[in-house]
Amino acid sequence: MGFSTDDALAPKVSEGFHLSDLDPATTPGLSADDNLDKEFAQHDDELGELQENLFASKAGSVLVILQGMDTSGKGGMIERLLKPMSPLGTRVVAFGAPTKEEREQDFLWRVRPHLPKAGEIAVFDRSHYEDVLIQKVESMADPAEIERRYAAISDFESEIAASGTTIIKVFLHISREFQYENLVERLTNPEKMWKYDPADLVARSKWEEYMTAYQIAMERTSTDDAPWYVIPGDDKTYARMVVKHLLVDALRDLERPWPGLGEGVDADEELEKLKKS
Amino acid sequence: MGFSTDDALAPKVSEGFHLSDLDPATTPGLSADDNLDKEFAQHDDELGELQENLFASKAGSVLVILQGMDTSGKGGMIERLLKPMSPLGTRVVAFGAPTKEEREQDFLWRVRPHLPKAGEIAVFDRSHYEDVLIQKVESMADPAEIERRYAAISDFESEIAASGTTIIKVFLHISREFQYENLVERLTNPEKMWKYDPADLVARSKWEEYMTAYQIAMERTSTDDAPWYVIPGDDKTYARMVVKHLLVDALRDLERPWPGLGEGVDADEELEKLKKS
Repeated sequence: MGFSTDDALAPKVSEGFHLSDLDPATTPGLSADDNLDKEFAQHDDELGELQENLFASKAGSVLVILQGMDTSGKGGMIERLLKPMSPLGTRVVAFGAPTKEEREQDFLWRVRPHLPKAGEIAVFDRSHYEDVLIQKVESMADPAEIERRYAAISDFESEIAASGTTIIKVFLHISREFQYENLVERLTNPEKMWKYDPADLVARSKWEEYMTAYQIAMERTSTDDAPWYVIPGDDKTYARMVVKHLLVDALRDLERPWPGLGEGVDADEELEKLKKS
Repeated sequence: MGFSTDDALAPKVSEGFHLSDLDPATTPGLSADDNLDKEFAQHDDELGELQENLFASKAGSVLVILQGMDTSGKGGMIERLLKPMSPLGTRVVAFGAPTKEEREQDFLWRVRPHLPKAGEIAVFDRSHYEDVLIQKVESMADPAEIERRYAAISDFESEIAASGTTIIKVFLHISREFQYENLVERLTNPEKMWKYDPADLVARSKWEEYMTAYQIAMERTSTDDAPWYVIPGDDKTYARMVVKHLLVDALRDLERPWPGLGEGVDADEELEKLKKS
């Protein structure tokens, strides 16, 4: 296997990173003779074990934030990522357009109740970043408010990280051409039509503005506590594998010895009681 | 395959059903030459398809209520049941002992916010039935209040069913001997010790009282809208397969043609716009 996690981590956003330099059709770290299917399957058992260990130890929690343009494969990514793990310790939260009630509050208000508890892994399908992406591109908030939000997000995430949550922020970076193919599929395959939203074309027509909004948002909020990873997304299998590696890495850091029986509980005594019961 | 869904449905609770007549170690409907692994895998693709179809059509929702004594395999059941489906349309809710705030409300208060939305499948890991099971056995509520709750539950569930939710209530029926083996495993396997709770022995010591409480609760609340199924649970693989069959049946009834594009949206027009974009 020529693929290493370090290679996958290459597209971490830090000073000097430019989105426009990264081709969505590339697969950094992957050599031609790698077998993606095998790479993809190999960590599934470990992922299941590590998630159960975290659920048992409650040594921390993990928050994966997934962002991407329409049809970038967020749904499929979430399915594949969570499949090896127990639904009892994992949770997906999809953030749609805010409701009237949500719009009347600060933009972070609706996010807080969905943060992972100790032992949990939560995946956000879109997130509070929409408030500095679509809201910036569509001028739904004024520039000073957008500016305030970058700082508010960094404070918010640093507080979450300090409370024991590992934050992984992923931008699934697809090309405009790849989106074209995906939209054609939605418009022509009867089983996919329900996913098509005419508003997708509006966002598509402002592609460069979105890329600029992503670039700025990531620059302003990629920190050691809550780094952004930009994953080339035109090869879905590759993207899924990279994100899985990121999660495995995070969970390995959180692995602890299995908790024993509760304090003051003695195995032999309990076995005696059990035998007599 | 000698196993049919009708056979699996045999242990549906209706008049004259007695829990004590059903041996937890049996596997009704299964003949000796059936290959359980194959049976178990065969519906996974269909389950994934049907769940996505429900998510798309929003033709209804499904609520699976799982009850059982400690170590009856509810966790493993949930994992295997949900694995073939997307976490975006499925949800697990584990009901533990009620908090102080919850105890100050009617017992159904904490349940309502977790009901599945249209298109969703929710699985309750324990439920409002605890309020007529442990609360009855441990005399945590007086008999008149327990009596009131049976009727309140039936009204509640019939209201949910009328709003479009298919309700499947499952009691995983294990034997006292099977629980013994499972508790020994928890007390001796270092990776399982965290699951052991000394309180399990208290419930175990009142086994017959629990069986009586289950019998009465199921008699009083098994309706056409919200039937109870008693699944012999000593053979975990068998129990999982039967519950999967129940879910497949429910989802087949909810299957609808795939929704098309939104009203007034024309595929050819959109394709034209897309090509020019």
